[in-house]
Amino acid sequence: MKILDNINSPEDVRKLDYSQLEELCSEIRAYMIECCSVNPGHLGASLGAVELSVALHYLFNTPKDKIVWDVGHQAYAHKILTGRREAFKENRKYGGISGFPKMSESPYDSFGAGHTSTSISAALGLATAANLNGEKIKVVAVIGDGAMSGGLAYEGLNNAGSAKSDILVILNDNQISIDSNVGAMHNYLLKLSTSPTYNRIKNKIWHKLGNIRFRRFIQKFMLSTKLAFFKNGSIFEGLGFRYFGVIDGNDLGQLITTLGNLKNIEGPKLLHIRTVKGKGYKPAEQNQSLWHAPGRFDVLTGEILKSDDPRSKYQDVFGETIVELAKKNEKIVAITPAMASGCSLTEMMRVFPDRTFDVGIAEQHAVTFSAGLAAGGYLPYCNIYSTFLQRAFDEIIHDVALQNLKVIFCIDRAGLVGEDGATHQGAFDLAYMRLIPNMTIAAPMNESELRNMLYSASQSGYGITAIRYPRGYGDGVDWRKEFSYVEPGKALLLQDGSDVAVLSIGTIGNRAAKAIGQIEARYGKKPLHYNMRFLKPVDYAAIDDACKKAATIITVEDGTLCGGLYSAVSEYVCKKYPHCRIVALGIPDVFVEQGSVDEQMSECKYNTVDIYKAIEKSYDIF
Amino acid sequence: MKILDNINSPEDVRKLDYSQLEELCSEIRAYMIECCSVNPGHLGASLGAVELSVALHYLFNTPKDKIVWDVGHQAYAHKILTGRREAFKENRKYGGISGFPKMSESPYDSFGAGHTSTSISAALGLATAANLNGEKIKVVAVIGDGAMSGGLAYEGLNNAGSAKSDILVILNDNQISIDSNVGAMHNYLLKLSTSPTYNRIKNKIWHKLGNIRFRRFIQKFMLSTKLAFFKNGSIFEGLGFRYFGVIDGNDLGQLITTLGNLKNIEGPKLLHIRTVKGKGYKPAEQNQSLWHAPGRFDVLTGEILKSDDPRSKYQDVFGETIVELAKKNEKIVAITPAMASGCSLTEMMRVFPDRTFDVGIAEQHAVTFSAGLAAGGYLPYCNIYSTFLQRAFDEIIHDVALQNLKVIFCIDRAGLVGEDGATHQGAFDLAYMRLIPNMTIAAPMNESELRNMLYSASQSGYGITAIRYPRGYGDGVDWRKEFSYVEPGKALLLQDGSDVAVLSIGTIGNRAAKAIGQIEARYGKKPLHYNMRFLKPVDYAAIDDACKKAATIITVEDGTLCGGLYSAVSEYVCKKYPHCRIVALGIPDVFVEQGSVDEQMSECKYNTVDIYKAIEKSYDIF
Repeated sequence: MKILDNINSPEDVRKLDYSQLEELCSEIRAYMIECCSVNPGHLGASLGAVELSVALHYLFNTPKDKIVWDVGHQAYAHKILTGRREAFKENRKYGGISGFPKMSESPYDSFGAGHTSTSISAALGLATAANLNGEKIKVVAVIGDGAMSGGLAYEGLNNAGSAKSDILVILNDNQISIDSNVGAMHNYLLKLSTSPTYNRIKNKIWHKLGNIRFRRFIQKFMLSTKLAFFKNGSIFEGLGFRYFGVIDGNDLGQLITTLGNLKNIEGPKLLHIRTVKGKGYKPAEQNQSLWHAPGRFDVLTGEILKSDDPRSKYQDVFGETIVELAKKNEKIVAITPAMASGCSLTEMMRVFPDRTFDVGIAEQHAVTFSAGLAAGGYLPYCNIYSTFLQRAFDEIIHDVALQNLKVIFCIDRAGLVGEDGATHQGAFDLAYMRLIPNMTIAAPMNESELRNMLYSASQSGYGITAIRYPRGYGDGVDWRKEFSYVEPGKALLLQDGSDVAVLSIGTIGNRAAKAIGQIEARYGKKPLHYNMRFLKPVDYAAIDDACKKAATIITVEDGTLCGGLYSAVSEYVCKKYPHCRIVALGIPDVFVEQGSVDEQMSECKYNTVDIYKAIEKSYDIF
Repeated sequence: MKILDNINSPEDVRKLDYSQLEELCSEIRAYMIECCSVNPGHLGASLGAVELSVALHYLFNTPKDKIVWDVGHQAYAHKILTGRREAFKENRKYGGISGFPKMSESPYDSFGAGHTSTSISAALGLATAANLNGEKIKVVAVIGDGAMSGGLAYEGLNNAGSAKSDILVILNDNQISIDSNVGAMHNYLLKLSTSPTYNRIKNKIWHKLGNIRFRRFIQKFMLSTKLAFFKNGSIFEGLGFRYFGVIDGNDLGQLITTLGNLKNIEGPKLLHIRTVKGKGYKPAEQNQSLWHAPGRFDVLTGEILKSDDPRSKYQDVFGETIVELAKKNEKIVAITPAMASGCSLTEMMRVFPDRTFDVGIAEQHAVTFSAGLAAGGYLPYCNIYSTFLQRAFDEIIHDVALQNLKVIFCIDRAGLVGEDGATHQGAFDLAYMRLIPNMTIAAPMNESELRNMLYSASQSGYGITAIRYPRGYGDGVDWRKEFSYVEPGKALLLQDGSDVAVLSIGTIGNRAAKAIGQIEARYGKKPLHYNMRFLKPVDYAAIDDACKKAATIITVEDGTLCGGLYSAVSEYVCKKYPHCRIVALGIPDVFVEQGSVDEQMSECKYNTVDIYKAIEKSYDIF
């Protein structure tokens, strides 16, 4: 890596000539592929944004000028160029760097991300602050076409367009988010980028003109006449942005020329670039969904190294079960905001295309649309990752719960999620769902329970239901069996016992059971263990039983300790069993950074050994 | 009311001829003005939507056809026409009808509302359900131009436009929400409605043509050629909607003709109508902001009957204090999503126009934009009503708290809000803010404390801070004094005592103090009383003190009992003071309907008398 090895900051990029910049792009790409092949990450989008990252740091005076990356899936080249080339080898690892832009990590990360559609609002805030300060800086937001379907992006555009702030929005359009994009905006962008337009011709002319002064003249002329601008990109023009594009975002020369010109145009402007997700690595270009975040792979053959784990993932259980349920009950429909393959709705989509709705990145709409379907007599299973469901908090309260419209929320990626880190932790759902009236909250301990809860929720004993389960593999339980009804609000006694009672909720119960087994083996003691199954209604009879038999109650949950199982149990025990002491295991009141789930649980002190120690310590009292 | 008196359902409307329909509109208007003059409500928007309500029920087969009203401020005529004429006299009253559409109230309320921007998503859900069911029904969403700036509305449009669902969106454009509208969409709509367009001419021709078959022919011709459509309304056309308008929405004839034609056009379509907020009542037309929800007034003179209450409102305290603070600290900026007059940012806006930002109805953007301002070195005071802040829950977590960007959230309308009812209760903020790391949560007991907390939060001892306070009048405390620093996380001992300890948070502490006074007067007992001031960090020393002196701890909060002060106290007491019993007073796990705040608190059993009884009962134990 003869050029990249000498790039320690964007200052070094700015010293290169054009051919060196092109070479730098190749080297970044090779380095990124190599690193991601052994240390998995979000490769696809970042491969597409290499030229963009180089061009931005070449032209803009970062970190004084601000680049705000939306989501951050596309920011690997940016990280590599901004002093984190070596650190990138530890990307997404415990103690390493985050997979997303992060303010505390680098001054070049002007604003952190992880969730989508935030960049325009954040950029407008930065630009407004600079204006108030009298600083002459440039602020650039880079947003993907997928993120453009999120309502927050529109709110940002709507405000930036009227604020007349001097910001540049780069719409990095690769026509795909994780799965194929959907929605009218997607179709609109496709139309813009496939019809030859005046703007594209214009950019070609610019590119060839070379002479800066002449370019400026042409530019001014075109702006004053508004030739062609209104027709193309009219949504953005309508929202007060000057629209430029479409240009090839993998053509470094074209990018540098166009961005160089746009630097000198005031007011809100949007540059629409077309890039190829996976660019420069053939396997990734050919199957873009698969290579969004491919896991480990062989660089030479492009073979993705599949795990040969015989166990099912919770996502497999959901994906197969929902199809079975939909076959039995024609009122069942399924909704996902752009996570069809991640949550395993792809089979449902194939079998029941009319009853499966991928609404794009639009969690709020996903929930209110589900409420509308329920009001129309259907039974929606709305599958959203825990961390993203936060964005529909108000819609859950206002459109679903308040009207008591039966929607089944399937909350995927609940609890600690591992390598995606702080922005993606499913830490809060138990707590934020519990405070909502009319809500039943279930958390299966294993694959069978997930299956049976998905089934039971469709039955009449259940109202609005949230079923939360983690990412990844279960414990290998044989779950492909006849459905059996899980009574709502009923805990399951896993082991009777005395002195110490463990109340666990969700899959963390398996670690609790293991710890209990170790205690038994070592001390011959029998702690009582309930799999609570439901946070709401919580099973008071189970807590009664525990409090009568034990002096110490240990609650274990894969969620924040502020407001979840611990709170529910405390409230009740404090009222009724003043002699009982409670020990709380779960996520403390901090944001938990990236690492493996095991590392994160250990850090939060509720991994198997921590549960073991808590029980051991409780017995010590006697 | 010779016509209105005989309208018991929309069936009766459909029997009328055109001149009777016009007369009906006049009668509805007079009735609405009369009722609202003695029983206040959202008069302005509803006056503007009288013709629309009559036309919709005249033309559509409600309740089989569905009308979804966004927000519901404009739905009074709809309520009056759908069997609630007499009930309207008890609009927004305890035990009366809700001021908003409500599914449980009437089959004509196809989907409830209160918050903005939900109607398109809900309508798409209803239309999709009908499609799946094979029902041929019409679904209409009526949305104001103000609500159109909310991201959810865009997500809905984006999905409806690509779904090719057969829905009609009526954009009821009165160019004002509560205060003046802002944002690029607003400017865009203004441009559409002020330039003479092909569509408007077209509608005039239609109106005069009369002959249905000929109209259809013209219509088809125009659709096939797409004449003029793309240029006008191109944002909506870009999003897959056929755009029609602008027409005069207070012209009944034009409305009936146009809507009659649109009924027969398939696919997603948007009709842009222009109405006058306050239409038909001169004072309301002349000062639209004031008459959005004017309170009681004299119908003849148009004089609004002002309360002569000498006390300040909490909003006055905020409004004056923020200006003082901004004068002292040039880094202070203020943000409101369309509630400048409601939250009293108008003075700040006048004195510091460059440092005050009304972002329109866009709570998500308000929060992420604030985060951007903080990242740029400013200190944003972001004022949002408790119930609407729910919509920015994810942005508070992801953009503010996770990055530890110091934003001061001023949470207005916290706790029970009275007549606006279930959709607007600020019941959840204590609980949903508590679960967020890095958050300081304060709740002043009176006007002075609010002022001093607003000041203190700007000081270095504070990080991200939420200050929550209720709507309306304080207790008359003389608050216009020098600022004094409130130590974060420090409770205030209001009265030392024994046996029973009352821990209150926020203004409800005044009722608690009153109840304590009554207990003392009657029994000579002295319960201990802490004004907790902060939910987070909660003052453990104060709880220690209470638990050492009292066997019963009574927590009192104007918020849900799931996750707020009660939970925080339970968690701690349960761990450390197993001999203490806790009694919890606050909002139970239900949605609380409309009424006065006093009625609502009594229903929830934490009004003064309930606190008194709880203390009395606790002493009974001894």
